[in-house]
Amino acid sequence: MTACPLCAEAGLDVLWRDDLCRVILVDDADYPGFCRVILNRHVKEMTDLGEAERTRLMAVVFAVEAAVRAVLAPDKVNLASLGNMVPHLHWHVIPRFAGDRHFPDAIWAPPRRAAGPAAPADAVRPRLSEALAQRLGPSPG
Amino acid sequence: MTACPLCAEAGLDVLWRDDLCRVILVDDADYPGFCRVILNRHVKEMTDLGEAERTRLMAVVFAVEAAVRAVLAPDKVNLASLGNMVPHLHWHVIPRFAGDRHFPDAIWAPPRRAAGPAAPADAVRPRLSEALAQRLGPSPG
Repeated sequence: MTACPLCAEAGLDVLWRDDLCRVILVDDADYPGFCRVILNRHVKEMTDLGEAERTRLMAVVFAVEAAVRAVLAPDKVNLASLGNMVPHLHWHVIPRFAGDRHFPDAIWAPPRRAAGPAAPADAVRPRLSEALAQRLGPSPG
Repeated sequence: MTACPLCAEAGLDVLWRDDLCRVILVDDADYPGFCRVILNRHVKEMTDLGEAERTRLMAVVFAVEAAVRAVLAPDKVNLASLGNMVPHLHWHVIPRFAGDRHFPDAIWAPPRRAAGPAAPADAVRPRLSEALAQRLGPSPG
């Protein structure tokens, strides 16, 4: 598969990884703490994976949810695997707050309010990284 | 919890159910075969469930994905648990096609094209119901 941006590693801020997947911190000023869990292999749908790998991948997604909740205490967590534009399995784990740009809509809807002051993802990075390592162990890979 | 529409059962077209969750067929003319997996109990986040129930719920979500793929052969399946408006765990399982109203955007984005001819969910209901029963067995509850 050529030209799949998720097969390439460049420019991604990796918080954790193993031989199955990696957790990256998304650089989105509206959503600090927004993480993605990206399968390493180029696979399209969850049901293209065997049950064991599905379970492993979801365990990482839920560990990210738990870490995001511990660090940011969001009003809600949004989980989504869409992949219409990039059909390479990846999960969005998005901390949502009642006052955020799109709440209570999905972040893909038109914004409900203007952007707030920029909140760089860097500010939460060390705490998220530590919260992930507590739940998943240090990156083996 | 009063007034939670997902704690109420009324008006939902249930395809399958057990003691943990139910699978409903969404009545959306743009997205025939769009299903939702709704936890029976009023719980907010996946990480509020224990690991065993999380695994059971995801197994149903993936069985619905497999059934939707078998019946509709979509170009992509979208999975999402948002719950910003109704914080009662539910998963959207959405068959997506290259020509659908929002493709390749999320269905929560502004539509890219006008609505096509109405495609009532009823047309796929019997096949989805059968495909689900093949994968999950008949509804025990």
